[in-house]
Amino acid sequence: MVVEQEIDTVVVDAQRLEDFVVRVLTTLGMTAQNAKETAEVLIKADITGVDSHGVPRLPNYVARIKAGTVKPNPEVRVVHELASTALVDGGNGIGMVVGRRAMAIAIQKAQATGAGFVSVRNSSHYGIAGYYARMALPHNMIGISMTNVGAGGGTPATYGRTGLFGTNPIAVAAPTRKDPPFVMDFATTVVAFGKLQIAMRRGQKVPLGWVMDREGNLTDNPNTRADGGYMLPLGGLKETGGHKGYGLMLLVDILTAALSGAAFGATFAKPNEATRATGSAANTGHFFGAFRIDGFRPLEEFLDAMDEMYQVIHSSEKLPGHDRIYVHGEIDWETEAHRRVHGIPLDIPTYKGLEAVSKDMGVPLDIKK
Amino acid sequence: MVVEQEIDTVVVDAQRLEDFVVRVLTTLGMTAQNAKETAEVLIKADITGVDSHGVPRLPNYVARIKAGTVKPNPEVRVVHELASTALVDGGNGIGMVVGRRAMAIAIQKAQATGAGFVSVRNSSHYGIAGYYARMALPHNMIGISMTNVGAGGGTPATYGRTGLFGTNPIAVAAPTRKDPPFVMDFATTVVAFGKLQIAMRRGQKVPLGWVMDREGNLTDNPNTRADGGYMLPLGGLKETGGHKGYGLMLLVDILTAALSGAAFGATFAKPNEATRATGSAANTGHFFGAFRIDGFRPLEEFLDAMDEMYQVIHSSEKLPGHDRIYVHGEIDWETEAHRRVHGIPLDIPTYKGLEAVSKDMGVPLDIKK
Repeated sequence: MVVEQEIDTVVVDAQRLEDFVVRVLTTLGMTAQNAKETAEVLIKADITGVDSHGVPRLPNYVARIKAGTVKPNPEVRVVHELASTALVDGGNGIGMVVGRRAMAIAIQKAQATGAGFVSVRNSSHYGIAGYYARMALPHNMIGISMTNVGAGGGTPATYGRTGLFGTNPIAVAAPTRKDPPFVMDFATTVVAFGKLQIAMRRGQKVPLGWVMDREGNLTDNPNTRADGGYMLPLGGLKETGGHKGYGLMLLVDILTAALSGAAFGATFAKPNEATRATGSAANTGHFFGAFRIDGFRPLEEFLDAMDEMYQVIHSSEKLPGHDRIYVHGEIDWETEAHRRVHGIPLDIPTYKGLEAVSKDMGVPLDIKK
Repeated sequence: MVVEQEIDTVVVDAQRLEDFVVRVLTTLGMTAQNAKETAEVLIKADITGVDSHGVPRLPNYVARIKAGTVKPNPEVRVVHELASTALVDGGNGIGMVVGRRAMAIAIQKAQATGAGFVSVRNSSHYGIAGYYARMALPHNMIGISMTNVGAGGGTPATYGRTGLFGTNPIAVAAPTRKDPPFVMDFATTVVAFGKLQIAMRRGQKVPLGWVMDREGNLTDNPNTRADGGYMLPLGGLKETGGHKGYGLMLLVDILTAALSGAAFGATFAKPNEATRATGSAANTGHFFGAFRIDGFRPLEEFLDAMDEMYQVIHSSEKLPGHDRIYVHGEIDWETEAHRRVHGIPLDIPTYKGLEAVSKDMGVPLDIKK
């Protein structure tokens, strides 16, 4: 059962919210096709409950497109390719348009050879990583999606205290038969930055393990970053496996940036060959992959195994206070089903942000459920 | 600087240790080639400091080969393939022989198309995951290696208390120019089981975050598993991101088992179509991958980026009490350089285990440095 959070919200209709985003983007000069593709990615975040990655970011995207640092209709170009790999230049385009084209190339290559992998440079924020991984599912493929993220207030290496890594998310999606598809989509920090922001706003303490102070000690103070503290990588400090999260963050930077020529970690703010030509463009890097299930095993046998795996997990013994065990993707799936019918609750600052965009762009905001 | 642990050890010579292992394995009927390949993987663990995964396991491998549940000279067979993918059946072979052949196939496919991926069923324990990822390096490729592990005393799903997942390690290796190669190789639990065993043997408490009791609370008691407690996935409990580690464990089971037909999680002990025919063979699954760097970007440009990345990380500010920041693979590299010259310190139980194997197999043990 989906229980929405008890905060002040405005409940909006998913389809009308998407239509609003499309109109805003086309008013900015985006083609109808690009606007539709971008809006779908944004609304997928809002409707699946990834409330930090959908329309709350629209004002920022609008500002960047207006400033010219993000191109609404980029030339997305294959720079180099082999049968199963490609380097794609995103032409400083909006991440959703770049990401969808690059993932489509990975899928096309997987169709031909069994596996396709694409590394992308000169892109920008692409929304939820999971969107692109999910694109593989209708093709009966396993999908992979990663992006690096600018290091503003980022995470240091183990034993370090210079913020080097963004929240560098990793997403993988795999098809299922009876259950919602497997969709793992997470930041390689302990928690996404949005969760820390909520605690800061509400003056709440955070669990030990989320952040460290500038001496490297765990603290429950969400404001520690103001005093030189940092968000920790998945695993926390070294003694609880934080070097593993640090490894995953670095791996994302290797696959999205070292392999493509995108900026990475602390170099995000530093002009390099790629960013010099384009002003203050982010030069974000992505990495996409797709495997054909039947490149390994008949699809039906794979789905049988997934059925069995889910059955074993769901029926395993629960801890006290819990009556259900989730597999990755189930909560998103149920949230989407609920919000499609009952609407998407937007918090007040997000709704006010959309009102400002509406006024600025002259696009009426008629989205309330 | 490498400082060896202060425990009672017997220091042995790496080359003579490898020769001993080869002779034991050939005495068991393994071909010279297979014995050499197996010994190399084992000794790579001992010499790089992964003390739990090298010759301490030799007595177990010997017992399994003698019992017939692991085949010393397996028929490793490609069951199905596309240009960039393959399903390999390991014929219940020893994991090192199966793993090396399967990874060689992934590399061969990557040579042809840019990317190669192989899922493996009917294998057995393959030693350190990192060995196979490293095999990609001389080919200027990025290498990937994963294996699932039987769930004996394993780790539950988030909110669960049935042990479903083994320590399911993930390894990735990437080439560098000046620095030791990037080699990330870790269990998807907070710590490897061996570390918990050490604390149990020594009667020491463990850091909060390693294990939970049967009610789902963190505890510093390493013996909690005897009372129904469990090792936690990377990230620990849900509030510190444990569902992410659970996702990684499950991902390894999907890629190594659902994709191949190997056993997984709680089904390890359950006979299925694959294991029924082969008695109590483990039916372990592996997953291997390789990418050509120049399938994306010229090698020299990639190596330039890696140089810069390492330079930024190494020169970042350190926490108090630390004068160096490591990148994954550096400690292994330095340990190998040190142990190649000064010998490998084996703990007393391990040395006694080798003495027993020596006596049993009639192979003289002349390995002391």
